[in-house]
Amino acid sequence: MTFDRALVVINPNSSEHVTDGIAEAIAPLTGRGTPIRCVTLHDGPPGIESQAQADATVPHLLSLAADLEAEAAGFVIACFSDPGLHALRGRTALPVTGIGEAACLTALSLGDRFGVISILPASIPRHRRALRAMGIEGRCAGDRAIGLGVGDLAAADARDRMEETALALRDDDGADVLILGCAGMAHARAWLEEATGLPVIDPCQAGAAMALSQIALGLTHAQEPAHAR
Amino acid sequence: MTFDRALVVINPNSSEHVTDGIAEAIAPLTGRGTPIRCVTLHDGPPGIESQAQADATVPHLLSLAADLEAEAAGFVIACFSDPGLHALRGRTALPVTGIGEAACLTALSLGDRFGVISILPASIPRHRRALRAMGIEGRCAGDRAIGLGVGDLAAADARDRMEETALALRDDDGADVLILGCAGMAHARAWLEEATGLPVIDPCQAGAAMALSQIALGLTHAQEPAHAR
Amino acid sequence: MTFDRALVVINPNSSEHVTDGIAEAIAPLTGRGTPIRCVTLHDGPPGIESQAQADATVPHLLSLAADLEAEAAGFVIACFSDPGLHALRGRTALPVTGIGEAACLTALSLGDRFGVISILPASIPRHRRALRAMGIEGRCAGDRAIGLGVGDLAAADARDRMEETALALRDDDGADVLILGCAGMAHARAWLEEATGLPVIDPCQAGAAMALSQIALGLTHAQEPAHAR
Amino acid sequence: MTFDRALVVINPNSSEHVTDGIAEAIAPLTGRGTPIRCVTLHDGPPGIESQAQADATVPHLLSLAADLEAEAAGFVIACFSDPGLHALRGRTALPVTGIGEAACLTALSLGDRFGVISILPASIPRHRRALRAMGIEGRCAGDRAIGLGVGDLAAADARDRMEETALALRDDDGADVLILGCAGMAHARAWLEEATGLPVIDPCQAGAAMALSQIALGLTHAQEPAHAR
Amino acid sequence: MTFDRALVVINPNSSEHVTDGIAEAIAPLTGRGTPIRCVTLHDGPPGIESQAQADATVPHLLSLAADLEAEAAGFVIACFSDPGLHALRGRTALPVTGIGEAACLTALSLGDRFGVISILPASIPRHRRALRAMGIEGRCAGDRAIGLGVGDLAAADARDRMEETALALRDDDGADVLILGCAGMAHARAWLEEATGLPVIDPCQAGAAMALSQIALGLTHAQEPAHAR
Amino acid sequence: MTFDRALVVINPNSSEHVTDGIAEAIAPLTGRGTPIRCVTLHDGPPGIESQAQADATVPHLLSLAADLEAEAAGFVIACFSDPGLHALRGRTALPVTGIGEAACLTALSLGDRFGVISILPASIPRHRRALRAMGIEGRCAGDRAIGLGVGDLAAADARDRMEETALALRDDDGADVLILGCAGMAHARAWLEEATGLPVIDPCQAGAAMALSQIALGLTHAQEPAHAR
Repeated sequence: MTFDRALVVINPNSSEHVTDGIAEAIAPLTGRGTPIRCVTLHDGPPGIESQAQADATVPHLLSLAADLEAEAAGFVIACFSDPGLHALRGRTALPVTGIGEAACLTALSLGDRFGVISILPASIPRHRRALRAMGIEGRCAGDRAIGLGVGDLAAADARDRMEETALALRDDDGADVLILGCAGMAHARAWLEEATGLPVIDPCQAGAAMALSQIALGLTHAQEPAHAR
Repeated sequence: MTFDRALVVINPNSSEHVTDGIAEAIAPLTGRGTPIRCVTLHDGPPGIESQAQADATVPHLLSLAADLEAEAAGFVIACFSDPGLHALRGRTALPVTGIGEAACLTALSLGDRFGVISILPASIPRHRRALRAMGIEGRCAGDRAIGLGVGDLAAADARDRMEETALALRDDDGADVLILGCAGMAHARAWLEEATGLPVIDPCQAGAAMALSQIALGLTHAQEPAHAR
Repeated sequence: MTFDRALVVINPNSSEHVTDGIAEAIAPLTGRGTPIRCVTLHDGPPGIESQAQADATVPHLLSLAADLEAEAAGFVIACFSDPGLHALRGRTALPVTGIGEAACLTALSLGDRFGVISILPASIPRHRRALRAMGIEGRCAGDRAIGLGVGDLAAADARDRMEETALALRDDDGADVLILGCAGMAHARAWLEEATGLPVIDPCQAGAAMALSQIALGLTHAQEPAHAR
Repeated sequence: MTFDRALVVINPNSSEHVTDGIAEAIAPLTGRGTPIRCVTLHDGPPGIESQAQADATVPHLLSLAADLEAEAAGFVIACFSDPGLHALRGRTALPVTGIGEAACLTALSLGDRFGVISILPASIPRHRRALRAMGIEGRCAGDRAIGLGVGDLAAADARDRMEETALALRDDDGADVLILGCAGMAHARAWLEEATGLPVIDPCQAGAAMALSQIALGLTHAQEPAHAR
Repeated sequence: MTFDRALVVINPNSSEHVTDGIAEAIAPLTGRGTPIRCVTLHDGPPGIESQAQADATVPHLLSLAADLEAEAAGFVIACFSDPGLHALRGRTALPVTGIGEAACLTALSLGDRFGVISILPASIPRHRRALRAMGIEGRCAGDRAIGLGVGDLAAADARDRMEETALALRDDDGADVLILGCAGMAHARAWLEEATGLPVIDPCQAGAAMALSQIALGLTHAQEPAHAR
Repeated sequence: MTFDRALVVINPNSSEHVTDGIAEAIAPLTGRGTPIRCVTLHDGPPGIESQAQADATVPHLLSLAADLEAEAAGFVIACFSDPGLHALRGRTALPVTGIGEAACLTALSLGDRFGVISILPASIPRHRRALRAMGIEGRCAGDRAIGLGVGDLAAADARDRMEETALALRDDDGADVLILGCAGMAHARAWLEEATGLPVIDPCQAGAAMALSQIALGLTHAQEPAHAR
């Protein structure tokens, strides 16, 4: 029965505390008809910091999604690199959102040019490929790394680095909306909005909200095309 | 109290039956925390079919929005041309979505290239300007007009024309997701999905869903920039 | 008789001294066959500094243009935000230019990448939407605000701010041609060219020259399309 | 004395009858302050139909322009491939327009997407490179060749081919403004406008009008940059 | 010793006969200093026809490459979807080419706009994402599917379908260079060049040639950035 | 007999020592089946530093290529401005590469966004036109000039300027691969790679390698189109 099906939010890294943080971030979206269930991909790496790590999670993620499909109303892939986004869309008729894609599309309705706060410098080329693949790179003002890995986002100087990076995106690059470029940054949204005066998008929130909307409206992605050219 | 504030969906044309159709289309989104209220802009034209008509509604729309702001949680401008979208964003700190923008952003997460079903040929340059202004024209497979005005969408041959246009967008232009290019086309969504096998986006649904998400997350657009360059 | 018709340059703000400045700026274009007449839109705001103000002038501007059409050979909308440009084109078969569009197109023939000197930071997203809508954003090196409103362009430090901004566009952004991003900046053209060594475009001059050329050649914009897709 | 200097329109092919046609096309622009003088590049080929021919004219064109500079107020390079446009700009401080560039920029103010009527299929890649170099390829609806060389534009079936091509650009490609893609097509402007209902741009007219405007306004292109990056 | 290291061409599907076809296709590149070794990824699927299949091969491909790295001078990933291209580049300092990327970059030097002959309709959105991610979608004239899977490329009507598709890309889409959109199409290059008169690029040849060039020149991709923004 | 034909690398400036430097740079590519022959265009200028100089070499270059065609297997035009690239392609069926085009295409496979180290500021608009014409400007992080002409590349401070420029491209513009923007900079490749940690592309090497690949594969550019639109 559709009512009992839940939106399944998959954290593709194996860190339970990241999953907990995601659940906390999207709590404001509960009670909107479809229950939300956050799960951890135990076969994933502790954090996804490279294309190789992102790609390596895909088979496991597809397998987990297949196991949960009968109970699912839709899926959120809760890693900013959107591992397996198009692969999973090819495997299920249920709505699937990636938090990276969702955050960027959300930004397009909130400002003119967005800035991305990334973890490591190596993330940036990966993000730029994704922005170009989405065809929206013209709306990106800049992407800057704070220089900390997923596991260091609670480090003493993480907050200072994020604020400094956010201000550079605003003042040097001209961003008028900011995107947190990692699923583990949700805690920073409120104080970064305060510090910069700009809207700040948590990608997990954006991804879950978009998936819930698609579920409510009975929308899903294009299935295997038989006609496209 | 925030709970009592409603998402205000403004139909900027004066046709009550269009407002009724909008209300019906977005009914699946009720009961998600924020009440929804659909209002008609009585000072608008019966239908918006030109840039001049779109522009002419803006002062009236801004005035109506100002009158309703105290009771509003956010606004949806329910005309595919998004009249006054950026103007209203400049006047209120509440979330504002335009159904044209929202439909296109929604399409980006549902397929690779979208097709737009427009009313009259004159709509097409207006739409193309908007797509380019959004920076997403590379994801548009085509925009084709059915050759009927807003008042004729119930005409005997409207359904045939829409289906023919939808199939041309799919088969000749390569669209894998379709957008209904007018607030008055919501009734067509189900049978067009059936006829084409593609996801079909009703812009009113997309605009209301996006606004509700922003309200739930406490997100709103960039305010008057003091720093951007 | 066509000979007596004038190119009507409409200042859509209500400040007569701005109209006077426009008339002075385009004086070098008089005596080229078609007389030029500068008029003030008394129903406009004192200065146009927001999208809402720009949009609000459109109905008044359309009305004034309709009143003057019988005596007009063409129209120039003399505000850098081009309020009502496409609306008026939809209402008249006479040539219509907007000074923002005209300035940018003129820049494309004078340098490789242009810089825009804007009044307030809030102008920049508006300009960027327009540049993208024109499809020429790839030729824009930068858009920077001097931080003064239309009414403050005669302030004591206006000249210093303009020069500093112009040099930043040249040296930091790589612009090799500059555009004055407001109808009220015409007086600055000569000394900015001197200070920067770059061509500087006054948009009123660009808009009037383009309109006169279209009139001389019997060219006008595309009318209501019946065929486009 | 500036008053005696003329706008020099150089036909870079050696066919005097083409020069005569150019002079006739731009006759409506005479009497606007600056006299116009049309000259033939006797060292050019009879018609420019390849990149090699275009490039080969440049040294001769630069030499002719240098000879005439003392009497010139500006230059128009009257071949749609704009041979030597940027080279000549690097050699003179006088305004220089190319009729290809001028026609395309003019089209941007007259419609949403333009179509180009070309002579031979081999012209099309050359044009596309130029459109991309200008950064305006997103505004081009299509470029189609009539399959006749410069010397055959008076052939019996030239008119039929041009009309058929124009209608395909309008109806199949969605162009709402047309550009004659050769200096030798000026005679077709009137009847093509009649046949298609679209504005039709003769590039020689566009190039001469743009040059006259620059001369009247004291504008010229960016000189040798010392600062750009 | 560098001389003994080989360029390792990995066929990421498990079909030995595809590997044999690749080896045959790139035979003209042997004897250019670096030996070439073609290997089959036995853990791959028989053919890669979806994003999920492409992603699923990556961990196996990375593992095989790691095993062979000590003997390798560089790697070619011989599937048009370039599975693991950026992942492997992140794991090795040796040159890595993907045949999809290499084919498209090669096309840019051989014509103005290329056409892609794809296997199944589902390939097309995957290709379009890749073209946009590369930032070269403006040079793609079209991508059309023949409607046969990897295993059916030897079907009786495969040749007819390929020729028909190639001619449509040339005549309807305006392609002047063609790309074979699958590693298993190499046999078609010669007769498609004959049938169309256009250059036809076999991606395996393009990928191997590019890798050999990088090896010869001591070039490799950017390593983990420490500075980029 | 094809075996005896050589790849002809034409240095379009008249400086023999530049030709010698090119020969030295591409020495690692000898012994790959096709002999390489470097020739100097004695009718060229000592260095090509402007569009006019680039254009002026074309007739001489075409003439030299025609003289050598019978003995040639292909041509490389060894000036970063690619003078005569498309012209020569229109005149011969042999492969032709331009070192500017080849360097940029090579960069696309080695990093995410490339930076160009140019000689003089005046080179930059010329390069930007070329990048746009290639449709790859979105992959360029920046283009910066060292402020020295071709003849001064051996000046005492040339190395310092190149290193400073390279670091600015890496650190301020975000380039992760560098291109030497002049045929006379080949000597700098090794130490710039050392100084920046980035891959550095010598355009002569890139152009020769690409030509050799095309020769080995029997590939050549699109010939005179008879069908394109």
